[in-house]
Amino acid sequence: MEHEIQTSWEIIRVDEGAISNEDEEIVTEFPITIMLNGEEFATVVCSPNNINELIIGILASEGIIRFFKDIDSLNVDKERGFAYIEISKPLGDTQHDHSKRFIGSCCGKSRQFYFKSDVRTAKTITSRLTVTVEQCFALMKNLQTQSEHFQMTGGVHNAALCTPNEMVIIRTDIGRHNALDKIYGHILQNKIPLSDKLITFSGRISSEVLLKISKIGVGILISKSAPTDLALQLAEDLGITVVGFVRGNKLNIYTHSHRIHGVNNDI
Amino acid sequence: MEHEIQTSWEIIRVDEGAISNEDEEIVTEFPITIMLNGEEFATVVCSPNNINELIIGILASEGIIRFFKDIDSLNVDKERGFAYIEISKPLGDTQHDHSKRFIGSCCGKSRQFYFKSDVRTAKTITSRLTVTVEQCFALMKNLQTQSEHFQMTGGVHNAALCTPNEMVIIRTDIGRHNALDKIYGHILQNKIPLSDKLITFSGRISSEVLLKISKIGVGILISKSAPTDLALQLAEDLGITVVGFVRGNKLNIYTHSHRIHGVNNDI
Repeated sequence: MEHEIQTSWEIIRVDEGAISNEDEEIVTEFPITIMLNGEEFATVVCSPNNINELIIGILASEGIIRFFKDIDSLNVDKERGFAYIEISKPLGDTQHDHSKRFIGSCCGKSRQFYFKSDVRTAKTITSRLTVTVEQCFALMKNLQTQSEHFQMTGGVHNAALCTPNEMVIIRTDIGRHNALDKIYGHILQNKIPLSDKLITFSGRISSEVLLKISKIGVGILISKSAPTDLALQLAEDLGITVVGFVRGNKLNIYTHSHRIHGVNNDI
Repeated sequence: MEHEIQTSWEIIRVDEGAISNEDEEIVTEFPITIMLNGEEFATVVCSPNNINELIIGILASEGIIRFFKDIDSLNVDKERGFAYIEISKPLGDTQHDHSKRFIGSCCGKSRQFYFKSDVRTAKTITSRLTVTVEQCFALMKNLQTQSEHFQMTGGVHNAALCTPNEMVIIRTDIGRHNALDKIYGHILQNKIPLSDKLITFSGRISSEVLLKISKIGVGILISKSAPTDLALQLAEDLGITVVGFVRGNKLNIYTHSHRIHGVNNDI
């Protein structure tokens, strides 16, 4: 399905004064509306591959499901851009709550904000997994090599589920959050054990990204990009190790450095 | 207020084998909940500057207001992260509609999607403004110089309202869409005439970005980054000139090339 995430567009290219007509590869953007028990739940815009995993990941991120078996049926009408999900377990207040803001100091020392559904689903991570700095460099290099392999257009984000030594799966999307939701959906669908897993990521680490990592249940997040202050406060409180700006042989460790082997500092 | 969009965080830096503790500048991420006539309308996460402009821009983008004078009062409680807006003109169905998906071929040859509020507010652009390729290069260089001037953290997006010859205002945010909404809010608040204006932008051109440009009412969008196919289909239909991948002395013209002076091609 990889070919569907990009397409061709006729452009005029200007390059140091030379003007030419070219066919340029551009990323596709696909709107899909999620119908939950016959009601419109949300519309997401995504790269149109691994759509089932994406839908499963979104439903779990939003607190609608906890396990893949909570879904009775999932049908995607790709032509019209609709996904139909049937769930017979009681939804409780989840459908009404999922955008309601909740402010509290419920999980530690800093003033935090969560959406109500996040309070229910974000978990403190107690994973004992550790990685070395060299493994961080190698995993990030691998993410970049793999992503270049199947897209040339620029403008997509990549996330991968890894062990300290190798990449297990990689997912791509025009949306940062979607790439992570596809990983989440894959984990739930295949019941992947997480005690030896971490996530590598190409995008910025916002609070939403960090909360998703916590919901997935992974203790180490390694990204090429920068984190925000709110993401780091959440990472502190939720026990997640954040490594950012991994480029070449450089990286920054922002939180819970005890999981990075050989770095005898305490932050 | 610029200092508030970044803050300091103690990190462990690994650089070619050397390990050190450093204070790193990181971007701040500020959640603000918009209360419209006493009801929760939305929560956005943003860089905490130009918040009034952001709120005005969001309300216009969502089709809640058309003019600044439609707002009776706007009060921001920055400490708690709430914005209270009172509007006495009838809201109609806007509050219920703004997330409802609408599919049709309402505006041209290609199969399009819009949210219902977009159908009401997206406009076809008939601007006669033109720019030269050299002006595109100079404006993009200016955007990058200005943005480096007031932030060093990486991870923010910039948008600027320009004439072909100079930048009028620049706005920054961790969210691509927020940077544009701040521009939109500023235009409405100050009744800026648009017939000689275009927008330069650092971020990817998604369908949502393109629709925002159409609602603002500007005919030329110049970005450092790549567009998506859906954005280009909308640009075709709505009469907007998209110039992307502007880097150094290179650029791509994707749609409505007649507004780029001296490029005698027809796409």
